[in-house]
Amino acid sequence: FVCLLFSFSILKLDPPVGPYLIRAFSLPARAWCQAAAQKLSGGIGSKLCGTSARVFGEGGSGRPNVACKQSLYESSPHRGTNPQMSPMLLLLDLLPALDGDAKTMTFLQEVVDILMAYIVESFDRETKVIDFHYPNELLQMNNWELQGEPASLDDILISCRATLKYAIKTAHPRYFNQLSTGLDMVGLAADWLTSTANTNMFTYEVAPVFVLLEYVTLKKMREIVGWPEGRGDGIFSPGGAISNMYAMLLARFKMFPEVKEKGMSSVPRLVAFTSEHSHFSIKKGAAALGIGTESVICIKVDQSGKMIPADLERRILEAKQKGFFLFFGSRTGGNTGEGALEPLFAITEVCKKYSVWMPVDVSETLFLLMSRRHKWKLDGVDRANSVTWNPHKMMSVPLQCSALLVREEGLMQNCNQMHACYLFQQDKHYDLSYDTGDKALQCGRHVDIFKLWLMWRAKGTIGFEAQIDKCLELSEYLYNKIKDREGYEMVFDGKPQHTNVCFWYLPPGIRYMQDKEERKKHLSKVAPVIKARMMEYGTTMVSYQPQGDKVNFFRMVISNPAATFEDIDFLIEEIERLGQDL
Amino acid sequence: FVCLLFSFSILKLDPPVGPYLIRAFSLPARAWCQAAAQKLSGGIGSKLCGTSARVFGEGGSGRPNVACKQSLYESSPHRGTNPQMSPMLLLLDLLPALDGDAKTMTFLQEVVDILMAYIVESFDRETKVIDFHYPNELLQMNNWELQGEPASLDDILISCRATLKYAIKTAHPRYFNQLSTGLDMVGLAADWLTSTANTNMFTYEVAPVFVLLEYVTLKKMREIVGWPEGRGDGIFSPGGAISNMYAMLLARFKMFPEVKEKGMSSVPRLVAFTSEHSHFSIKKGAAALGIGTESVICIKVDQSGKMIPADLERRILEAKQKGFFLFFGSRTGGNTGEGALEPLFAITEVCKKYSVWMPVDVSETLFLLMSRRHKWKLDGVDRANSVTWNPHKMMSVPLQCSALLVREEGLMQNCNQMHACYLFQQDKHYDLSYDTGDKALQCGRHVDIFKLWLMWRAKGTIGFEAQIDKCLELSEYLYNKIKDREGYEMVFDGKPQHTNVCFWYLPPGIRYMQDKEERKKHLSKVAPVIKARMMEYGTTMVSYQPQGDKVNFFRMVISNPAATFEDIDFLIEEIERLGQDL
Repeated sequence: FVCLLFSFSILKLDPPVGPYLIRAFSLPARAWCQAAAQKLSGGIGSKLCGTSARVFGEGGSGRPNVACKQSLYESSPHRGTNPQMSPMLLLLDLLPALDGDAKTMTFLQEVVDILMAYIVESFDRETKVIDFHYPNELLQMNNWELQGEPASLDDILISCRATLKYAIKTAHPRYFNQLSTGLDMVGLAADWLTSTANTNMFTYEVAPVFVLLEYVTLKKMREIVGWPEGRGDGIFSPGGAISNMYAMLLARFKMFPEVKEKGMSSVPRLVAFTSEHSHFSIKKGAAALGIGTESVICIKVDQSGKMIPADLERRILEAKQKGFFLFFGSRTGGNTGEGALEPLFAITEVCKKYSVWMPVDVSETLFLLMSRRHKWKLDGVDRANSVTWNPHKMMSVPLQCSALLVREEGLMQNCNQMHACYLFQQDKHYDLSYDTGDKALQCGRHVDIFKLWLMWRAKGTIGFEAQIDKCLELSEYLYNKIKDREGYEMVFDGKPQHTNVCFWYLPPGIRYMQDKEERKKHLSKVAPVIKARMMEYGTTMVSYQPQGDKVNFFRMVISNPAATFEDIDFLIEEIERLGQDL
Repeated sequence: FVCLLFSFSILKLDPPVGPYLIRAFSLPARAWCQAAAQKLSGGIGSKLCGTSARVFGEGGSGRPNVACKQSLYESSPHRGTNPQMSPMLLLLDLLPALDGDAKTMTFLQEVVDILMAYIVESFDRETKVIDFHYPNELLQMNNWELQGEPASLDDILISCRATLKYAIKTAHPRYFNQLSTGLDMVGLAADWLTSTANTNMFTYEVAPVFVLLEYVTLKKMREIVGWPEGRGDGIFSPGGAISNMYAMLLARFKMFPEVKEKGMSSVPRLVAFTSEHSHFSIKKGAAALGIGTESVICIKVDQSGKMIPADLERRILEAKQKGFFLFFGSRTGGNTGEGALEPLFAITEVCKKYSVWMPVDVSETLFLLMSRRHKWKLDGVDRANSVTWNPHKMMSVPLQCSALLVREEGLMQNCNQMHACYLFQQDKHYDLSYDTGDKALQCGRHVDIFKLWLMWRAKGTIGFEAQIDKCLELSEYLYNKIKDREGYEMVFDGKPQHTNVCFWYLPPGIRYMQDKEERKKHLSKVAPVIKARMMEYGTTMVSYQPQGDKVNFFRMVISNPAATFEDIDFLIEEIERLGQDL
């Protein structure tokens, strides 16, 4: 065996190894295979390397057959008739190793079996949402440390199982924690394909299909926003916070294109307006972009959480008097807290009157436009200059998938382009308008489009419509269930317009407390304890938070396509079970 | 069948559908299933919905057995004995549908079979790297448009095949285009697991294992950089450009913490220094952060592409005289062009002397530290204030995987935190230092850690060492092969210190041209034409670019772990075959 001849040589020789040894890297048994095998079995490395080479053969079915049936994973719930791997195989035995095909397929199939078992389990209400352990405990429960020497592929499978054992089952029908709940099977398949294609969005050259799909999908999304013929621009970015940062960047550049070269010192003091309940990414963006968080003016909201247009106008006039330049009026659409849908027309009018760039952060809610029943709630969204839309939220596209849509064509390109000559050569042989990467802040850019595109195909627009309608029905069901129920109080006035339902649960012990301050103090501790107990039991998960003078309340955001009415019932029962003694 | 009872009802009824209908969503046959089936088969929707429910049964093996053998995909190269799907199944028949387990596994298995076939094919030198088509052609070659109605799962599989058919085979041993080449089988498996876990890095609450793995891995990476006991901080970000933007953000905040609240108007004019050959992301970052590209001062490089410390000092003194504030001195490490490794010690000395924050963008090259043979090339890297390291480049971790490592603890948190109360509640029941999300610019953050961690386990540090050593051997082999070969000229002086080999190929027709300008003019067209031909033949791909006064040259960056000496030989033969008539 080659393995015997080379033992340790590559790693131990100080002078550079020649081409001869290097060529050995394409052979199935390599030097560090031995090192690892020796570590694993106490000195019988060469024998094991030999074993790994013998163990595989091709069956008639196109699937590898394996003679050796020893495995540490007999207990895999979805083994079936799968072939099993030799326990001593290493990564180097897989492709691109010359005879690596069968071993690779066997290994990947083992992984897929683990994943499938996990998926099936995740949707099963009898299993826990989480097998919770405190960080220090979890650090001790497995050997997570990285080593100098390679682990066997069997050990890799153990690591996969351990990782999933302690992971949150985000697909679980009773997982309601923040957004990004649920797991769509076509979205998942698409993400697996994306990983397999392993490319980069910067040019058509390296991602022809994905660039076209981004083009097709962005156009479709702009049509849904209501821009004529889907005209405009857009980009997929790594999340809503970055999309919002792009929006702010574009607003600034639109007003003062010289800022790109000359920086903030060349422009007047800029101020941005946003709802006091807007997402924190607006402030993060302002800090990063050199605008400063103090220049983000927070507009008051009413009892239902909606921005008050009159307060916006008042603050705008105040800022103008001080000589500040108004450049950005972010409007949220239920992104945090109460899920209020704001009076868009009134706000747009104010922004227009004072020439304030008007992006809309509807990262969660834009999805409503796909529902014939609910689209009226976003009437006027087409008047926005840009729109942040996160398909990885309500649409349940696997994370990450966020887009910024921009009404004005060419603006993104002008704002961000740097003409890197090693990527965006101007003498390529194809239509260079498809090299979209120079619009981005990023250089390498992950392919986030395929999962959205494939899910859209598999569901159709009407499938997304059914999904959003269902989530809203579930929210309404929850609201109706608890609004007059003993022990519950709603945090905001009126029926929620989106899928956020914010409420307090008052255990019997504090329900009739007279002292308001005392009651508030107690109440603030209820949600955290119930949540902690939920996680320890692993039965369900729901978010809680304080907001302004409102102490910790549960914020239920229904986005999980697997959830049913019974799961809502379960949540309420569970809150009561875990909280009644508090 | 439920399907018959509800036909179209959910979608066509204008008044809100009641809980009764919504409950139907958890049943296997749903209203829009019919809509789709009708579209697909001309009105026999209900029959097909029934068929899809009948078609599956459980076999004894734990794998689903399927009675119906009809399929459009008989030709799948890796079908084997797999069960086949009914052609009319829809996404809604899969999980979370009540009886969706078997159908889900069958569907995902079909997808995996397609992916496995693609993987095996990708490593096969007999297949094309790319089946190239011009954008307009490719748009016509398939129906990529998004529809109102759902497609069948069979159609989804067709879409997967079509997407892969026209994708770049980035795993192909002869794919040398820029970085992000190669496909690591454990990295891929890890990415599949990551997609399946589908969670978010913002808190321990929703990503317990991944947060710990980030903690373990970042510490290990900092140890490799050489910081005592791996102390410091860090974060995984969506790519090197964003990591570099973080570095700039930290540098500014370190000098002027008030910039976060008060913006750039509160600080003096800042200037940043970087090599004239540094990555364009430094300028993108400066533009975004309100510093402005004109405040990025480009330092001259020598003939081998290295930044000249004396020029750095000169430009620093100049800027000081003008009263500018020096805050950032980016040093590259072979990220663009020639792959020069800079005189780090000399540069650090200059930066130290003038109190310039010194981040190092070694996104490609940091990997060298893992090689006992090559680590000397980065001597002094531990003196940097921050380090950008992209495992998705030379280490072949699937895209995206980039980290910023920071020497000073707590700085990132202070710089970026906004205390969003709906995520980072301070009364949680576990150690809150593991809620690392508020350090990030992002809110939702994709899990990029698991693929790196799992690959590291599977390779061991010595496996990465072998990989980097091999890439450098291959580069040296290429360099030695062409440096004196007729028709070749090297772009930069001396043997490359990293894996970039930059060269011109001169077709016989221009080899002896006397007129230098004429020769240059001709030469500039050679690489683009050869590259276009490579893509049209689909045999290999390599990057080209101009740089300053140097006309288009080939920039070979060897990072593909599947490449061998023969593939280098092939590249040279191919360049000559395709370019000799030019």
